[in-house]
Amino acid sequence: MKVKGKNYRTVWMEGSSVFMIEQNLLPFKFEIFEAKKYFDTCFAITTMIVRGAGALGAAAGYAMAQVFLEAPEEGRDEFIAQARFDIEATRPTAQNLFYAVKRVYKAGKHSVEQAVAEANKIADEDAEDSRSIGLYGNELIKKNAKIATHCNAGWLAFVDFGTALSPIYMAKKEKKKIFVYVDETRPRSQGARLTAWELKNARIPHIIIPDNATAYLMAKGKIDMMIVGADRIVANGDTANKIGTLGKAIAAYEFGIPFYVAAPTSTFDLGTKTGNRINIEERNQDEVIYQTGMDRNGNIATVQVTSPGSRALNIAFDVTPSKYITGFITEKGVITPEEDLIREIATKDE
Amino acid sequence: MKVKGKNYRTVWMEGSSVFMIEQNLLPFKFEIFEAKKYFDTCFAITTMIVRGAGALGAAAGYAMAQVFLEAPEEGRDEFIAQARFDIEATRPTAQNLFYAVKRVYKAGKHSVEQAVAEANKIADEDAEDSRSIGLYGNELIKKNAKIATHCNAGWLAFVDFGTALSPIYMAKKEKKKIFVYVDETRPRSQGARLTAWELKNARIPHIIIPDNATAYLMAKGKIDMMIVGADRIVANGDTANKIGTLGKAIAAYEFGIPFYVAAPTSTFDLGTKTGNRINIEERNQDEVIYQTGMDRNGNIATVQVTSPGSRALNIAFDVTPSKYITGFITEKGVITPEEDLIREIATKDE
Repeated sequence: MKVKGKNYRTVWMEGSSVFMIEQNLLPFKFEIFEAKKYFDTCFAITTMIVRGAGALGAAAGYAMAQVFLEAPEEGRDEFIAQARFDIEATRPTAQNLFYAVKRVYKAGKHSVEQAVAEANKIADEDAEDSRSIGLYGNELIKKNAKIATHCNAGWLAFVDFGTALSPIYMAKKEKKKIFVYVDETRPRSQGARLTAWELKNARIPHIIIPDNATAYLMAKGKIDMMIVGADRIVANGDTANKIGTLGKAIAAYEFGIPFYVAAPTSTFDLGTKTGNRINIEERNQDEVIYQTGMDRNGNIATVQVTSPGSRALNIAFDVTPSKYITGFITEKGVITPEEDLIREIATKDE
Repeated sequence: MKVKGKNYRTVWMEGSSVFMIEQNLLPFKFEIFEAKKYFDTCFAITTMIVRGAGALGAAAGYAMAQVFLEAPEEGRDEFIAQARFDIEATRPTAQNLFYAVKRVYKAGKHSVEQAVAEANKIADEDAEDSRSIGLYGNELIKKNAKIATHCNAGWLAFVDFGTALSPIYMAKKEKKKIFVYVDETRPRSQGARLTAWELKNARIPHIIIPDNATAYLMAKGKIDMMIVGADRIVANGDTANKIGTLGKAIAAYEFGIPFYVAAPTSTFDLGTKTGNRINIEERNQDEVIYQTGMDRNGNIATVQVTSPGSRALNIAFDVTPSKYITGFITEKGVITPEEDLIREIATKDE
């Protein structure tokens, strides 16, 4: 996507360096982080300079390619094995990361050049899948549509285009008139920070709303459709996504508003039957208790926004039963949330 | 309610001074503001040192009583008329304020003592109504109940006890084991700040949750009932309350969880037929864009928490259709949301 007139991906490789948009500084500053060695790329993953399923996978693939570039002749195998372990330890719950590391590791057995080529291929595939999701999703967007979204499933979470936001970018490209309601997405406010930044950057009309306002806007007929991303979609269509997705899906269902989940088919987990089997991560309460932002002097500062001495519960994701979902927008097309169709599309060759 | 072992109301009068808990400093500091003259009380209302329907009414009544105490012999009537105008101009949308000013104004025509007595009576009635709501509401709370609430409808919003929190205080008094989920209530975070402060102060087990988490906790069977306050309840039971109430009511309905609205019968507006007729206030976007809290040095600081250059929409209230409401808890008893019952209870003498 373009930033200040120049095309960027969230992560890319030039020579032996991996470059990433420094997402910890967004939305307040746009800077590029250069990881000269694989260990710098690991640092970027751990400190969330790069985040989001697709972007993480690509970054990990590039890190593995760096390992082959850096490996000394003496003790080469030990170096590579240890480095692979380092990369895999950065975010041990990110499936894409393991998948990418494995692919580049295999390619690297043939040659260093093949490792780099494979890492680039992983990034390209991610961008291409996102682009396809956008093309399919755009067909669902009517002229003058008012679209709600939750969290950030934009290009910052992938290599390019994103998932939930990709159809919106494609609609914009076609000069379709659209308007986006951006859920703040407490506690980490990825909507208010990243999605709003993306949309402003792409000059797409939008407004930030507190998460509390979505249901009322739906009741008042202000929202025509909702598109969100997914962390995991199980065999029956139940979908794990950022906390808050469920409440908004129920409200959409109640008011008859189409509710779409946009995700690459790699997000489907056919081995898990229903959403009840999904383990939900609980994160540190400090993400609820403190808020970081830009103070009046332009410095990043942190303030406590809750009553001192009270604890907070920080559940990272929720599970939306498939009955509330209108359809899945994938890189292979759009399907309704039916077990047969999910199995078919998830296993189909492109 | 007790704070540090001493009984407080949110607002009270001693001699010619009106005292108020300085709510702008909560939850970080507990201080009492003394308004020596009626004009200081107006200042306290305007700057939200005192807020909440019941507390505002009492403060305005006391301000009017101060006017009679302060009025000079020469030009007495003009002084009183001008001062009444000043008080009414502080928060022109607060119905309780006009009601209280009118009552004290009438009483003051007889004597200054009667004006002060009437102001005290208004405060006493508010506290007594809240107490009754607590007694009736407590009958609905089962042992080991996990109760969710939204915003702050506690004693800080009234003279004492509150509405949604009053049943919880009564349950605690009876040593019933309960647990409260406190919705953060973005954008002004009255839940995370005021309700959490109240519950911690009353030693009631609770935890703050982002507004996004309520539906999922309901789906997981973690919430047994929900009690919220109300800004206005119209003839058919549709209820205006803090933004976010609607989404939570729909989720509660979906999962079969009792959803109660606690409010004095003065909140019923029989002249308005349905919720569609309620005008909803839109507030300044800065309440969404900026967050104020305590920085690491213990100072109050403000940070921007959204992407610079993106606008935000700040709708203050929403309207929950009566079909999602299990019952109204009033000072005269509990009723289901039926038009006949609403009319009967709203017009019944106590």
